[in-house]
Amino acid sequence: MAGAMSATVGQLAGATGGRIVPAQGLDEAASAARLLTGVAGLGDAQVSDLSFLANPKYMGLLPTTRAGCVLIGAAQAPLPHAVQVVVANPDHTLAQLVEAFGPKPVHPEVGIHPTAVFGARVTIGARCRIGAYVVIGDDCRLGDDVVLHPHVVLGAEVAVGDASVLYPHVSVRERCTLGARVVIHNGTVIGSDGFGYATVDGVHRKIPQIGTVVIEDDVEIGANTAIDRARFGRTRIGAGTKLDNLVQIAHNVEVGPHGIIVAQAGIAGSTRIGHHVIMGGQTGLAGHLNMGNHVTITAQSGVGKNLSDGAVVRGSPAQEFKTEMAQEVARRKLPEALERLRKLEARIAELEKKP
Amino acid sequence: MAGAMSATVGQLAGATGGRIVPAQGLDEAASAARLLTGVAGLGDAQVSDLSFLANPKYMGLLPTTRAGCVLIGAAQAPLPHAVQVVVANPDHTLAQLVEAFGPKPVHPEVGIHPTAVFGARVTIGARCRIGAYVVIGDDCRLGDDVVLHPHVVLGAEVAVGDASVLYPHVSVRERCTLGARVVIHNGTVIGSDGFGYATVDGVHRKIPQIGTVVIEDDVEIGANTAIDRARFGRTRIGAGTKLDNLVQIAHNVEVGPHGIIVAQAGIAGSTRIGHHVIMGGQTGLAGHLNMGNHVTITAQSGVGKNLSDGAVVRGSPAQEFKTEMAQEVARRKLPEALERLRKLEARIAELEKKP
Amino acid sequence: MAGAMSATVGQLAGATGGRIVPAQGLDEAASAARLLTGVAGLGDAQVSDLSFLANPKYMGLLPTTRAGCVLIGAAQAPLPHAVQVVVANPDHTLAQLVEAFGPKPVHPEVGIHPTAVFGARVTIGARCRIGAYVVIGDDCRLGDDVVLHPHVVLGAEVAVGDASVLYPHVSVRERCTLGARVVIHNGTVIGSDGFGYATVDGVHRKIPQIGTVVIEDDVEIGANTAIDRARFGRTRIGAGTKLDNLVQIAHNVEVGPHGIIVAQAGIAGSTRIGHHVIMGGQTGLAGHLNMGNHVTITAQSGVGKNLSDGAVVRGSPAQEFKTEMAQEVARRKLPEALERLRKLEARIAELEKKP
Repeated sequence: MAGAMSATVGQLAGATGGRIVPAQGLDEAASAARLLTGVAGLGDAQVSDLSFLANPKYMGLLPTTRAGCVLIGAAQAPLPHAVQVVVANPDHTLAQLVEAFGPKPVHPEVGIHPTAVFGARVTIGARCRIGAYVVIGDDCRLGDDVVLHPHVVLGAEVAVGDASVLYPHVSVRERCTLGARVVIHNGTVIGSDGFGYATVDGVHRKIPQIGTVVIEDDVEIGANTAIDRARFGRTRIGAGTKLDNLVQIAHNVEVGPHGIIVAQAGIAGSTRIGHHVIMGGQTGLAGHLNMGNHVTITAQSGVGKNLSDGAVVRGSPAQEFKTEMAQEVARRKLPEALERLRKLEARIAELEKKP
Repeated sequence: MAGAMSATVGQLAGATGGRIVPAQGLDEAASAARLLTGVAGLGDAQVSDLSFLANPKYMGLLPTTRAGCVLIGAAQAPLPHAVQVVVANPDHTLAQLVEAFGPKPVHPEVGIHPTAVFGARVTIGARCRIGAYVVIGDDCRLGDDVVLHPHVVLGAEVAVGDASVLYPHVSVRERCTLGARVVIHNGTVIGSDGFGYATVDGVHRKIPQIGTVVIEDDVEIGANTAIDRARFGRTRIGAGTKLDNLVQIAHNVEVGPHGIIVAQAGIAGSTRIGHHVIMGGQTGLAGHLNMGNHVTITAQSGVGKNLSDGAVVRGSPAQEFKTEMAQEVARRKLPEALERLRKLEARIAELEKKP
Repeated sequence: MAGAMSATVGQLAGATGGRIVPAQGLDEAASAARLLTGVAGLGDAQVSDLSFLANPKYMGLLPTTRAGCVLIGAAQAPLPHAVQVVVANPDHTLAQLVEAFGPKPVHPEVGIHPTAVFGARVTIGARCRIGAYVVIGDDCRLGDDVVLHPHVVLGAEVAVGDASVLYPHVSVRERCTLGARVVIHNGTVIGSDGFGYATVDGVHRKIPQIGTVVIEDDVEIGANTAIDRARFGRTRIGAGTKLDNLVQIAHNVEVGPHGIIVAQAGIAGSTRIGHHVIMGGQTGLAGHLNMGNHVTITAQSGVGKNLSDGAVVRGSPAQEFKTEMAQEVARRKLPEALERLRKLEARIAELEKKP
């Protein structure tokens, strides 16, 4: 990451309102004057790198880190090597610093690449960046500052809000709409047909999927994820929700705002989930469920029933966290418990022989 | 969905042979004259919408639904708002009505987009629709009415049967064949190399994967799914089988006809499954297995052994449904059972002290 | 596979140093003269096919196989139909034979397709094959003999080593690097943003992901897999490691050399795994873990803690293989054990009544 950024500790502290704690044997002025040109984790960082402590798990690395500067939530005694900059939320502050001082994302140039193919009646806002081999269907509407990377395909009547970014090989099928500042990573599919069939005499007849998908503002979606269009009505991803890679969202699902859905999770058809829901990696939700707000589903769990606000569940089928945890602990004692049971039976048989 | 369709209740009943049950306070003529312009679920529908009851779970919505008309399997007493149209299979009937009266899928125009790139000796049937930036390898053969959306890539010697539809970013590798009326959604890959290596002195040497994939008639495959080519011979998906999104089919797998494979399921190499098999979401099958016909595997299960016709299994590793269910029920009593065991031991120790 | 290859048994034995065991009723010369034109599994093979026995599970097929020739690790008594060619590693030998005598992969022609779009300052080695509609960003560097299939997209400053092959619809984001002889199958994404947010007042703020991905030499990656770029620093896949389809590798993960990661497995952020690790299908690793070398994780397991060299684990959450297996066996006895427990309680109550 050499050359990734260039700022002194003093500039960073100034930009974030952070308090400087000098390193051992360094005065305040020398601490502030340190030049940082990269960002790295505590274990890898050099004196020219900014690092940070967000996960307390890595606290033990502080005495040995070679980082020039560490963003930290609570001031520690002066460290051997690193200057501390104390801020309320190191993760968020780091993000802001990288955005201000770090490398910028590489997007196509402003304008329309000559190889882009446009349908009829397409409207495009100001300052859009349309890359090579983009295909845009009839009647699409793009807001201002939209970025379509090479090989993006939009079907007919797709709307894309201001400042949204679609990476290469994203495709959005007809009539789906994306809000403002939506980011979709490579290969993700929005608006494929929902998986619906009526079985007649053992033959699966397709149920037409004539609804759409609505992606609200500030949603980010990872790579190679699939979000199906509704049977009718719409599949909806609420504002500010973040989806990771390889996630499956079936038809007519409604995901509330500000959710976190980790990689390889899947939600079956017509399930509705509230706001601020967290689904761990490789979790699954059955269809036609109602999930409350602030629900947390731990990794690899599978949920088959409705959950109310604030529920925390684990297991497959999932149960309340502590309940399932107690069962899991008990399960580990099971081989020994069966042996104890066998012995008890022998001892009772012995007792029963007594007159 | 305003404008999605346009038909009166009478027209719909006529087209389906359904019986009309007027809504409360509405006579037969007024019921039949209602104009429907959209389709919606019971909870969202307005008076201008057609709705339906297929899943009995939603029965409770009938008294309050605002739908103008409801397709239903068994006649109910007149509803406050909705006219009932009674048909044998509401799901299937709805599908037929939407196909007849609803919006049509948006495909590229008949003909070949000027940007499509063709290899040598490609043959194309009548009325095909070849979109922008499609790439077709040498010696490919396309039947009549084939639709290739923008950015589809076909390798050499690929055959595509009549009326098949490939959505954007689908790729089919060399020598694979698709039957008639096959539908493949965006981003899906047919014919990537199987995952096979011979490990020699700790180094994994690739085993060439020189077989193909055969997709039979009337198969539909979701988005971002992957079906590997065979090591030799072929990987096969039987006629009428439907695969959802993000499914993994390994080399040399044989899936029988009329199966249903839900999202994120995976089948390891050389496993064969019969006809009418249902694999739930996120299920897995180990390699080299034989599955019978009409097997059902519930969501998130993992199967490691052969299953005979009609088997219904759950769990990981999967067992017969009721057997596994009884174990799961017992597991939930385990923490309390361990406590009871501990008490028994104390009581027996007490008894044993008696002379 | 008719026409897939063309060689006599004698030529194959000569090329591999294998020993010929004639079939019943056939002399050495007639055995060596047999012409093989295809490759097939034991159950499907005809007299014109080469077959092989690598998995002892299929030993029972030897007496009935119609294959003209079988590669085998240990000589058997003469078979009714098949000539045996005895070699040390049938899998590996078959691979070599197919490579020498079988069909060659179908790649674009040497040269640059006129529709390929190049950024500024791109350097390309000798004999590269750049297919239709490939897009290459500024400052990319390609070694010799690189193959980019149609619709591959490389972002700015991407490096691709000698003889690497990228299949259709692969995209590699800016600044990522691929070593020599890397093979990436269709639709796979290298370098999408890691999934990282700092949550401030319930709103998820993106943490810029300014690192890269490094794919080392001889790595092969399946279809529709996603490998995220690092937050900073790099995500790394070690030399010779093989990834299957639909695998998720999160930001800052480090996978050691010579690993095998089966389809639909996922590794969460910052986890490091050693060399020769085997992850079964649909397995998951939590984030921030350290895995040793030669670790084996069986299918569908989920690992939440560090594992040391040679560990073999199963279950979710995963435990040492035999430990977990004993618990699973015990679990299956649980319904009956609860019944035994109930009876014991009754018998003890009875005993306790005694004076």
